[in-house]
Amino acid sequence: MREQLKSVHNQHVKNWKKLATKKFRRQTNRYLLDGWHLVNEALHNGAQVEQLIGTAAELDKHSDIVSLVDEVYEVTPEIIKHITETVSPQGICAVAELPATYGIPSEINGAWLMLDSVQDPGNVGTMVRTADAAGFAGVVVNEKTADIFSPKVVRSMQGSQFHLRLFNGDLKKWIGDFNKIKAPVYGTELNPQARNFREVQTPETFALIMGNEGNGMDKDLLELTDQNLYIPMRGRAESLNVAVSAGILMFELNKEGGQGQQG
Amino acid sequence: MREQLKSVHNQHVKNWKKLATKKFRRQTNRYLLDGWHLVNEALHNGAQVEQLIGTAAELDKHSDIVSLVDEVYEVTPEIIKHITETVSPQGICAVAELPATYGIPSEINGAWLMLDSVQDPGNVGTMVRTADAAGFAGVVVNEKTADIFSPKVVRSMQGSQFHLRLFNGDLKKWIGDFNKIKAPVYGTELNPQARNFREVQTPETFALIMGNEGNGMDKDLLELTDQNLYIPMRGRAESLNVAVSAGILMFELNKEGGQGQQG
Repeated sequence: MREQLKSVHNQHVKNWKKLATKKFRRQTNRYLLDGWHLVNEALHNGAQVEQLIGTAAELDKHSDIVSLVDEVYEVTPEIIKHITETVSPQGICAVAELPATYGIPSEINGAWLMLDSVQDPGNVGTMVRTADAAGFAGVVVNEKTADIFSPKVVRSMQGSQFHLRLFNGDLKKWIGDFNKIKAPVYGTELNPQARNFREVQTPETFALIMGNEGNGMDKDLLELTDQNLYIPMRGRAESLNVAVSAGILMFELNKEGGQGQQG
Repeated sequence: MREQLKSVHNQHVKNWKKLATKKFRRQTNRYLLDGWHLVNEALHNGAQVEQLIGTAAELDKHSDIVSLVDEVYEVTPEIIKHITETVSPQGICAVAELPATYGIPSEINGAWLMLDSVQDPGNVGTMVRTADAAGFAGVVVNEKTADIFSPKVVRSMQGSQFHLRLFNGDLKKWIGDFNKIKAPVYGTELNPQARNFREVQTPETFALIMGNEGNGMDKDLLELTDQNLYIPMRGRAESLNVAVSAGILMFELNKEGGQGQQG
């Protein structure tokens, strides 16, 4: 089935546009993927792709991929621009089902990143992408963190949502579950008790918490961590960007067994 | 001297606004600092602050700082908004002299970061800030890199331009100068000859080159490097954000002597 749509006032188009809001994403349990890279990642990783939306040129060029989706819409470049808010969109989008991101898995394994009130969508997406590259098993974000399926976060995740597990949750509950299996939870704040991140030996299963860009971690959460880590600074910068800090920490804490897997 | 300005059509205001363009910054050898943090950093680090621009409330509150600058302008909040293009500006700006950023220092020492065609201003600023925190001596950017004194780069550098040396330059010439003193230049590209960054022992003086977000390093430059480094990935992400990669590499390559300086 390939339906042609030419007006931005069409009800389908209006709904796609509304997927930019958290409310509509949660209500419909759907979100928007923009560009071939994300559409391909979704299809190759078994994600539920409900609708494929493309210009005639793009749909004709990639008929092999188009045949994998039941509901296909041929639209104008204007419609694509309207729903993606991208300056030069590729001309292909998809509506995919939101992965189930609530609850806590019955068994926790591997390295996990927890985000406490991280506000910038670019930082959130970059940290998920970095967690993926560092071999982390999953990322948990609390309600005060930028929504993980907002257009900006999805753009900067670059498909990593299909490679690791993403959860929305109460970080206190998650920390409680790590405590139960005696897996350490590392906070990040420079205080007198904090330890140089290079001196920490991590077990296979652990969690690392990154806090808000300006205010750092919530004090209540900080009290629940097993240890706080800091990155020693040599220069006079007062702090690092949160996504850069997270990258340095994740690649150091999870390096065991990772070396030599590539190159 | 404290002059009052109320119209965005005033010639001073027009000039401040024009400092958002690279052309006018180079023509006048000036750039704009937005907010108290940057103004204070400039004054504490001996930068040439030509003009201080603030709302009456801000200027009155900080008369000690105001007295340090000869030319002071009291303006409306609208004028501040107009020249900074910030959603909620603090109400204070300054016009500072551009540091001399051409030429090559006669003696090169310490760790240096070179940026080859990095396009995103946020990435450029974040890398300068991270280089500062990692104790790097300076950063060199080529003409194809986002201008280091554009408003967005200045915002994300967070004052690090006052802590290390910044240069615009031809990276081939710079690499030649590193060669002359037998200081290694490390490229960053995953190729069969590339080495795991954790296996490299760096001397005190070296350079690290980071390339363009999409295309990586220029092939001609790559041929001039002594060694190429890669970050081993454990997950399925295809790459890392360039500023995250730079952070991981800089903190590892320049860690000698840095530990224990803090905390």
